[in-house]
Amino acid sequence: MLDSTRRPVVVDTSKSPHARLRPLPLTDVRLSDGFWGPRRRANREETLPSQYRHLEETGRLDNFRKASGKMEGRFEGIYFNDSDVYKWLEAAAWSLATDPDPELTKMVDAAITEIEDAQEPDGYLNTYFTFERADKRWTNFDLHEMYCAGHLFQAAVAHFQATGSTRLLGVATRFADHICDTFGPEEEGKRRAVDGHEEVEMALVELFRVTGDRRYLEQAEFFVDARGRGLLGRPYGLHDPSYSQDHSPLREQDEVVGHAVRALYLYSGATDVYAETGEPELLKALRRLWNNMTTRRMYVSGGLGSRHEGEAFGEDFELPNGRAYTETCAAIGSVMWNWRMLVLEGDARYADLIEHTLYNAVLPGFSLDGGHYFYENPLEDEGTHRRQPWFGCACCPPNVARMLASIPGYFYSASDDAVWVHLYAEGSAEVRLNGGRAFRLGQRTNYPWEGDVEIQLDGEGEFAVMLRVPSWCEGGASIEVNGEPFPEQASPGAYAEVRRVWRPGDAVRLRLPMPVRRVEAHPYAAENVGRVALMRGPILFCVEGADNPGLDPRDLVLPNEVRLSEDFQPEQLGGVVVLAGEAEVSPPGEGWDGRLYRTATRQGEKPIGTTRLRAVPYLAWANREPGPMRVWIRSR
Amino acid sequence: MLDSTRRPVVVDTSKSPHARLRPLPLTDVRLSDGFWGPRRRANREETLPSQYRHLEETGRLDNFRKASGKMEGRFEGIYFNDSDVYKWLEAAAWSLATDPDPELTKMVDAAITEIEDAQEPDGYLNTYFTFERADKRWTNFDLHEMYCAGHLFQAAVAHFQATGSTRLLGVATRFADHICDTFGPEEEGKRRAVDGHEEVEMALVELFRVTGDRRYLEQAEFFVDARGRGLLGRPYGLHDPSYSQDHSPLREQDEVVGHAVRALYLYSGATDVYAETGEPELLKALRRLWNNMTTRRMYVSGGLGSRHEGEAFGEDFELPNGRAYTETCAAIGSVMWNWRMLVLEGDARYADLIEHTLYNAVLPGFSLDGGHYFYENPLEDEGTHRRQPWFGCACCPPNVARMLASIPGYFYSASDDAVWVHLYAEGSAEVRLNGGRAFRLGQRTNYPWEGDVEIQLDGEGEFAVMLRVPSWCEGGASIEVNGEPFPEQASPGAYAEVRRVWRPGDAVRLRLPMPVRRVEAHPYAAENVGRVALMRGPILFCVEGADNPGLDPRDLVLPNEVRLSEDFQPEQLGGVVVLAGEAEVSPPGEGWDGRLYRTATRQGEKPIGTTRLRAVPYLAWANREPGPMRVWIRSR
Repeated sequence: MLDSTRRPVVVDTSKSPHARLRPLPLTDVRLSDGFWGPRRRANREETLPSQYRHLEETGRLDNFRKASGKMEGRFEGIYFNDSDVYKWLEAAAWSLATDPDPELTKMVDAAITEIEDAQEPDGYLNTYFTFERADKRWTNFDLHEMYCAGHLFQAAVAHFQATGSTRLLGVATRFADHICDTFGPEEEGKRRAVDGHEEVEMALVELFRVTGDRRYLEQAEFFVDARGRGLLGRPYGLHDPSYSQDHSPLREQDEVVGHAVRALYLYSGATDVYAETGEPELLKALRRLWNNMTTRRMYVSGGLGSRHEGEAFGEDFELPNGRAYTETCAAIGSVMWNWRMLVLEGDARYADLIEHTLYNAVLPGFSLDGGHYFYENPLEDEGTHRRQPWFGCACCPPNVARMLASIPGYFYSASDDAVWVHLYAEGSAEVRLNGGRAFRLGQRTNYPWEGDVEIQLDGEGEFAVMLRVPSWCEGGASIEVNGEPFPEQASPGAYAEVRRVWRPGDAVRLRLPMPVRRVEAHPYAAENVGRVALMRGPILFCVEGADNPGLDPRDLVLPNEVRLSEDFQPEQLGGVVVLAGEAEVSPPGEGWDGRLYRTATRQGEKPIGTTRLRAVPYLAWANREPGPMRVWIRSR
Repeated sequence: MLDSTRRPVVVDTSKSPHARLRPLPLTDVRLSDGFWGPRRRANREETLPSQYRHLEETGRLDNFRKASGKMEGRFEGIYFNDSDVYKWLEAAAWSLATDPDPELTKMVDAAITEIEDAQEPDGYLNTYFTFERADKRWTNFDLHEMYCAGHLFQAAVAHFQATGSTRLLGVATRFADHICDTFGPEEEGKRRAVDGHEEVEMALVELFRVTGDRRYLEQAEFFVDARGRGLLGRPYGLHDPSYSQDHSPLREQDEVVGHAVRALYLYSGATDVYAETGEPELLKALRRLWNNMTTRRMYVSGGLGSRHEGEAFGEDFELPNGRAYTETCAAIGSVMWNWRMLVLEGDARYADLIEHTLYNAVLPGFSLDGGHYFYENPLEDEGTHRRQPWFGCACCPPNVARMLASIPGYFYSASDDAVWVHLYAEGSAEVRLNGGRAFRLGQRTNYPWEGDVEIQLDGEGEFAVMLRVPSWCEGGASIEVNGEPFPEQASPGAYAEVRRVWRPGDAVRLRLPMPVRRVEAHPYAAENVGRVALMRGPILFCVEGADNPGLDPRDLVLPNEVRLSEDFQPEQLGGVVVLAGEAEVSPPGEGWDGRLYRTATRQGEKPIGTTRLRAVPYLAWANREPGPMRVWIRSR
């Protein structure tokens, strides 16, 4: 029984008993701003078509043609390459929902045809396990069969919601049925197994929500519960079971460990399960993990994953800047998880982190031209790390594409008698509250470069507008309704509830002061001792060689008393605020020539002069000529 | 034509045209001190017998029995496991040279029999490439065939020198001949290839020196020259060619990169080649690499290898403390390379680093009980990193054993009319200079815990005693001969030349003041900003939980004005100097509760009290109950 409403929403909690917030369809949200607008245009015009070409040119689509017998030859590439096709399809589906495009529709339909034709009669579908490997299906759970299935399911849900077509959804449910028939409790005559790379869990819950088939939810729950019981053994030989979060049952875990993307996808799926089941122990574990992650194991960018080795979270406070792994996919996984936590109760902490992560950890992975990507996102670099048009392991590019295509779905939520404004950008939304009250909500703002937001409401009756006051807005926000101060407390890191009887033409003005903030890290984060990161509003800044020619950013010292200017520069990097101010240049003294260690002189380094420091948003770094870059700069 | 002198020496530069220093046989050096003595006893009594048991119990010796057909079954373990047997044999041979032991001789002879019997008729020998893999020989140069061969050659040289037996040497030369017949220039009808893991280069030079067969030297030169020309391709899929130093010809390299042990073994082999050929470009490259390593990529312990990923050197100043890889084998490789550089011209920089590395990077890998080892040697730890009795990849344990067994060979050298004293410890040596002058040299000292050394000379005639004044002895040393000040400049980091006409009973007194030094790191080494490491003489100290119960060493702040007491404690950790003094306890303030980043307050942390800080030598850490450990402590 398919959900007849069929509206494209990011995570459909419309009927989830343990979620307070309901999604707004992407199609009801318009972004007409100068920040997301150009990025979403690049996503449509450059990213999606060029990624389709990469899928063709690297043989990823051919693998489906070979599997169906339309083309000669063997599988080519990495065993999880099918997932890139699915993620691209999901991205394309979201894009078609908001921006119909006949050319893109053709590509989507062609890809779906190849997928349909490659599916086995029993529902199984994975082009790596064809021909000589056909009998190796479900024998090695580190080969991402369920991971690929999960991405197929997510793509299918998005495609159905966006287009109404059940073609891909049919493929997905046939495969999901195969998985449900194959895996489960032994007492049901099934196999107990979990996948090395989580993903299928949240996908199954989404499939449940769109089909109404409770079996998929139960299967997701089974996979969440079965993990951490030794089923995977020691994945990949070198890796510990914690690599796949398989070291203990999720409900007993209290530290985020192992491969960061896997972890975040697991937490996302488990949160989806909680939204349906409401089991308190599960939520407790998720909150413990979130607290450990955000207070011990997260970069100032919101980036996650400190180690190249195992693409893993590190120990508490293990946050190297140059060797930060901080995979773009992990940032996306964090947005996905935080969104699911947010809609449970509407706790602004999660929305704060979504905003912060989008600007400072997801977007750095994406070039301004829309065709180049970072896999790793270090917080400092000597100028050698550059975005690539594609990767052999190409998880990040289509992940960025689906995030950008679906971003309107993250701006608002509805609850019984409130509309929730999570993110700010010029644009509008059609809001429908319970009981059928519908109205138009407009945002006029220059966010994220200015902190004034005017919310125009074209509705009638009593309801609340929940305005997120970001945690960075430490001095507090001010709110006016129709020019009069509104008494509601607008404390940072919470939603200000503006509840009243509304009349058409009412307007709320939210003022979020955006002073430049010098941010310091916990003293146990060893690399950042004596350093600050610059933030302004939600935006993290960095010092980049292109703006500071001939200067080693390691030698910059920003005195506390220096006031930084803040200028919006429309010609710079697609239009960004640039910070500038007088800084000291304090290179290592001559006593360090040819030495790495010495008896402490306690003299410190002495400034040899000053320079005009310029800092640009970290999200836009590496879009100009290569040069050194640093987020954390010395201060005094 | 075997060298008839057959005296066990660490690296036999007796006839090397481009080496100034000649080795003293191990058998002519006695260590009767309280530092090396007990460690060498543990090596003989616990390490060597227990390692032999491990070789048996893990099937490493059985692999030879299987290869020769004496035992049923297939190869077991990792493909380079043969090398552990060879390294153990080398260690045992050195030990037998100075300390005959019938039980150990039996084990050695038994192991050699298995090796002899497993050798193929054509000289090839590698038990991994037997049975079904026999036809895979020399097809994948990342499978360590030449690496294993090199360790066989080194063991054979040591065994021949120590015992006069040519049994193992015969095996080695047959295999070396096979390698020389197989690999070389195409124009000689041979295959161009290099091994993924360097080692065979230095082993071939050693084989040349003991046999006089110049072909082995030429083969070593060929392997050094052939590297960096794309022969290896992209080793291990994930790794870059720099992993095996194969990214460019050695003579063009100027940064130490890739797998640290491989790199150090390559540099050692290339230095051996230089000692014979004297090619200036090769020495220039080696000096460039040494400078890069010691001024940019070395831990304060002398440890090398910053990355777990690829067991690799990092970028300049990439020196994380908790995630330091600093493999014990890399420290040993550094001693081996520095020894080879030292004997070229007698530059004290290399001897300084040998001393420093032995105390602070090799010995931490070895437990006081002689039966447990570190593979990785982090400079800080939360109490979870503990020495193990053995490893699946067991390169480090027998490497430590051969270093300890051969350590007397690193104490002295001879040149035409000088004896060189590189290291200090109570003991004696029989010295033979060119022209046959022979005399006994005694050392009376409590080194490394006290800096007074009395050198007693029982010789006659004019010659020089070259006394290393360590670079840590920054205030300069004082020298007396027979109680009278000797005018020779004794500046730190150089050899003081005490040249005169000696009479029996003469004595030289060297005074090396050992104040506690607070060492700071180059300001680009980000984790060490605001911190110092404590050193006294050649010994690096650390703060360990066992001495500072209930204290988080991250919260310690050592004020500059605090004078640390220095007490030798004979009952502690086998007898060590312990440093102690009043330090501040300055934990993160309450403002950090539940936060990882915040707007900078510029207040810093405030001390909440003081505590008696105690610091013990890093070389002895983790020999008591587990607890946190730090080398770098905060200072103000």
